[in-house]
Amino acid sequence: MPVAPLVRRRKPGYSLEAPFYLSDEVFAADLETIWARHWIHVGVEADVPQPGDYNVVGFGRYSVVIVRGADGVVRAFHNVCRHRGARIINDERGSAAKLVCGYHRWTYDLSGPLVFAEHLSPDVERNCLGLKPVHLRSLSGLLFMCLADDPPADFSEMEEIVRPYLDPHDLRNCKIAKQEDVVVAGNWKAVMENNRECYHCGGHPELLKIFFQFFAHTEADVKPRQRAYYERYRRIQAEMVDIWEKNRLPWDLVELLEGRPTAFRLERLALDNHGESYTVDTRVASKRLLGRFQNPRLGALSLHTQPNSWNHFLSDHAVIFDILPITTETTLLRTKWLVHKDAVEGADYDLQNLTQVWRTTNGQDATFVRWQQLGVSSPAYEPGPFSPNENQVEKFLGWYIDRMAEGTPAN
Amino acid sequence: MPVAPLVRRRKPGYSLEAPFYLSDEVFAADLETIWARHWIHVGVEADVPQPGDYNVVGFGRYSVVIVRGADGVVRAFHNVCRHRGARIINDERGSAAKLVCGYHRWTYDLSGPLVFAEHLSPDVERNCLGLKPVHLRSLSGLLFMCLADDPPADFSEMEEIVRPYLDPHDLRNCKIAKQEDVVVAGNWKAVMENNRECYHCGGHPELLKIFFQFFAHTEADVKPRQRAYYERYRRIQAEMVDIWEKNRLPWDLVELLEGRPTAFRLERLALDNHGESYTVDTRVASKRLLGRFQNPRLGALSLHTQPNSWNHFLSDHAVIFDILPITTETTLLRTKWLVHKDAVEGADYDLQNLTQVWRTTNGQDATFVRWQQLGVSSPAYEPGPFSPNENQVEKFLGWYIDRMAEGTPAN
Amino acid sequence: MPVAPLVRRRKPGYSLEAPFYLSDEVFAADLETIWARHWIHVGVEADVPQPGDYNVVGFGRYSVVIVRGADGVVRAFHNVCRHRGARIINDERGSAAKLVCGYHRWTYDLSGPLVFAEHLSPDVERNCLGLKPVHLRSLSGLLFMCLADDPPADFSEMEEIVRPYLDPHDLRNCKIAKQEDVVVAGNWKAVMENNRECYHCGGHPELLKIFFQFFAHTEADVKPRQRAYYERYRRIQAEMVDIWEKNRLPWDLVELLEGRPTAFRLERLALDNHGESYTVDTRVASKRLLGRFQNPRLGALSLHTQPNSWNHFLSDHAVIFDILPITTETTLLRTKWLVHKDAVEGADYDLQNLTQVWRTTNGQDATFVRWQQLGVSSPAYEPGPFSPNENQVEKFLGWYIDRMAEGTPAN
Repeated sequence: MPVAPLVRRRKPGYSLEAPFYLSDEVFAADLETIWARHWIHVGVEADVPQPGDYNVVGFGRYSVVIVRGADGVVRAFHNVCRHRGARIINDERGSAAKLVCGYHRWTYDLSGPLVFAEHLSPDVERNCLGLKPVHLRSLSGLLFMCLADDPPADFSEMEEIVRPYLDPHDLRNCKIAKQEDVVVAGNWKAVMENNRECYHCGGHPELLKIFFQFFAHTEADVKPRQRAYYERYRRIQAEMVDIWEKNRLPWDLVELLEGRPTAFRLERLALDNHGESYTVDTRVASKRLLGRFQNPRLGALSLHTQPNSWNHFLSDHAVIFDILPITTETTLLRTKWLVHKDAVEGADYDLQNLTQVWRTTNGQDATFVRWQQLGVSSPAYEPGPFSPNENQVEKFLGWYIDRMAEGTPAN
Repeated sequence: MPVAPLVRRRKPGYSLEAPFYLSDEVFAADLETIWARHWIHVGVEADVPQPGDYNVVGFGRYSVVIVRGADGVVRAFHNVCRHRGARIINDERGSAAKLVCGYHRWTYDLSGPLVFAEHLSPDVERNCLGLKPVHLRSLSGLLFMCLADDPPADFSEMEEIVRPYLDPHDLRNCKIAKQEDVVVAGNWKAVMENNRECYHCGGHPELLKIFFQFFAHTEADVKPRQRAYYERYRRIQAEMVDIWEKNRLPWDLVELLEGRPTAFRLERLALDNHGESYTVDTRVASKRLLGRFQNPRLGALSLHTQPNSWNHFLSDHAVIFDILPITTETTLLRTKWLVHKDAVEGADYDLQNLTQVWRTTNGQDATFVRWQQLGVSSPAYEPGPFSPNENQVEKFLGWYIDRMAEGTPAN
Repeated sequence: MPVAPLVRRRKPGYSLEAPFYLSDEVFAADLETIWARHWIHVGVEADVPQPGDYNVVGFGRYSVVIVRGADGVVRAFHNVCRHRGARIINDERGSAAKLVCGYHRWTYDLSGPLVFAEHLSPDVERNCLGLKPVHLRSLSGLLFMCLADDPPADFSEMEEIVRPYLDPHDLRNCKIAKQEDVVVAGNWKAVMENNRECYHCGGHPELLKIFFQFFAHTEADVKPRQRAYYERYRRIQAEMVDIWEKNRLPWDLVELLEGRPTAFRLERLALDNHGESYTVDTRVASKRLLGRFQNPRLGALSLHTQPNSWNHFLSDHAVIFDILPITTETTLLRTKWLVHKDAVEGADYDLQNLTQVWRTTNGQDATFVRWQQLGVSSPAYEPGPFSPNENQVEKFLGWYIDRMAEGTPAN
């Protein structure tokens, strides 16, 4: 099915036509146009804390190794040997002095050049056989990569805006307490749509102990039965603004989702009950707060970047979500929980308590996405109307369609 | 591979060319032309005995929910939410007051209309967002659905002819004692072909205790070694005709397989040995006979409907077989054993005894079909000649080819 | 992706472009052009030692039964019933008086003709319904088949050259001590490339106890660190030449890999340490030597045939490797260990000792091939340069490209 007409005829305000979730041609176009040309959130510096540490990420058929050099700089390379194409790194993470292909021992420096290849003919120009680099940027400790030769320049603008919000959480002094990978049985866009609305949050009872259901709702979306709940939300939000101001934490909503390759959204959120953290009792999960924070009750800084991440930064920990397309109908959802690098498991934090709310929520979302993927597979499916509280889904899709329209040759 | 030329050049009297079993294009055409435009046997009223009971059926990528309304009427709907396309019912059977999509709680009345969708914009016309209906008919308790807007009109003719045969077995007062689903590793047509002949019945020793091997044979097909067996068959058949006449059970062979969309075949069969039922000892499996039957020895009423079912109605139970294509090379074979709704398991019938003969036979047939599917996959395969006792296979294929020729645009 | 341009633009001295490993179109062309028109190594006479013994082999969607007739002649037939196409033999090996299709009992003589088909219409010409034959040749006990109507005539030349080398090992008086099948996660050409060089032999420490790493190396390829190892190799090689001469074993290198359909390579190799056999202690695995051998230390005769086998013949056993493509990205690697037919397991040989070195090596190679298949899947892969000691890989690919160029219609 040709992709361009599908993109052109997309009806705003409605869910996408079925081929966007089912067609291998659309998936290939997504990889080429969205994933290979935009800044993709791929992890955190804490994935590779020491020189020689590496971490492999991939989507579609791409595999990329992220590695911290002897000079402390984090770089990214295609995980493909320049000899006969073997995958060089075949575990997910590890540490090495050099990157050595296991097949014929071709050996690359952590910064890319080929430094050893026995038997190579002297006619061959070794200098041209270094690992192929991939653009990599760290934004206050969040890693973004771009496969294109000329990555979108507006990354710098995002960086400038996001840094003051993010720096107080001091991500560079965090460690990964836990990573969880879930293979979701749905197209990557269905996974992202699911994340962009809280219309379905009735299906997340654990999350709603702490997260207010009014994400992306306007006052008009509040139902009579929710009135008291909404009043509490407004009251707590007002309290939090005072706290944020007192702590000099920027809290203005930033939403730059349209008309730009590097799209993102930044919001500081009030949280319910004790309002401290994404835990079952809504108290902090880690006694060791991040950065210089004294007050455990700071709500959550929420950062969404398109096409593939959402992140929550709290007083005591951060939760980082990346999605990575595997096939047309499967997507990897990778979640990382970060705590202060000096926090001690068992003493300062309990892993179960730290991870429980979002692990449960991830499982529920994986089910919702699977149901959607199954349903749109039916030839009887036709796009349905979004409600006002799904405006962020519409914005994600609007961005997606714009980017595809720009990047897809007419056919 | 274009489908039309394959259909056009099919050589009567010979098995089909390989692409009919292997090509995804033919499979897509089968779904569109045969499965989406004809009456498909999908179950029995006993699948949904009470208001609110539902049962999900599917083939290809279609999913349909069959549900009995508060008014007692059984209806069918596409199992796809009108909002963002989620599959609404995700278990196979159950009971509910309303059909509620688990994603955003859109709620549909059992008769289809959308009755609740919180947050929906007032601009949206709710009346247009009911579940998409699928035509459904009950023939003496057997359920047939048709996905087309205008289903074939000749269903009524089938109904008129079949009802007098079927009504005495009183299917509407039956319950499902057991359902068994088998995924057969073969194209749906190979499964149907397998069912349409008893040339292979030497591979069903358990079945042959009760079923005469002469299905679709003429006297000319009877081999010398079978002479005594054939004489017994003729003698018992004559006895049964007397019994059928005495019980006022219509028994004329009806075969309407050609030149019509809704094709079927009806035959009342004499059974071997005690001749009562499809059990190991050929006696009834259930003490509680169906309808008003007094005599356990009534032979079997056999009803075959194209494209996808065969059914056996006895004095004490019924066995209902549907086949449902899953992929080009896999097919669901669904078998249901029905007994009188008041029959008590353990007292009136033993489940193992009730189901053993056909469960064994299904397993044997699944193996035969798998062998055929594997064999026709070889590029060395070429269609071979049918024998006279495979005339029902030829009739099934003749009907299939005719329907495809009519429904497939030339290409 | 059209195959012809890929074949035409292949750059000698470099690994193949990615579609050669990934594209289903190329795989189909490989099956049609290489596999269905060349002599394929499929086993040994010891697979079917007695009349009535059969052995099923296959690649792609082909299935072929190799069977020894009542007359002692080994033949090959497509494993497809001429009736409705069922696969006739559904186990891998066995013994039978006739080949009987399990579906409708059509029965074929071991030499092919249809000898029994009940119910067949008298109009049908039974003589035209024998099993479809496949060309089969035995070269000193090694079996080769060709699916083409007119197989390459140069098989006879190979036979004439190879026979004097092979006959002393007396394969026809061997039995199969063990067969091992490994599904390798790589295209068949990647499996073959892996076998054609010892650049990667550092990854086979067990093999290097016995196999000199200098396969396909010239003296220029010997690295300074290998100097003493190389001197030992040269010294032992000189000793072995004396032994081969004394035993009248031909040992001239024969390499006929270019400009011919039936390509092969023959080399008698010196082995390291005790130099007797491919075992952990480099001593013979079987006390009962092959043929009339007296001296256990005969090195190894290595026979490679294109497109799909390599074989090692020792004083006490033989190891036979066939590769058989399953799908574009999977390949069956089948290894057989043969010992003298009178050798007694437990007394004359220990199965673990006989098989350990190559089972370990196979596992390592399967990993290397998987890494390569994964790596070339990345869109970032580009062909890299072969080194001089990969000249046999280049020769295999040169032969493959030539054969494809000749056999593929320009498109």
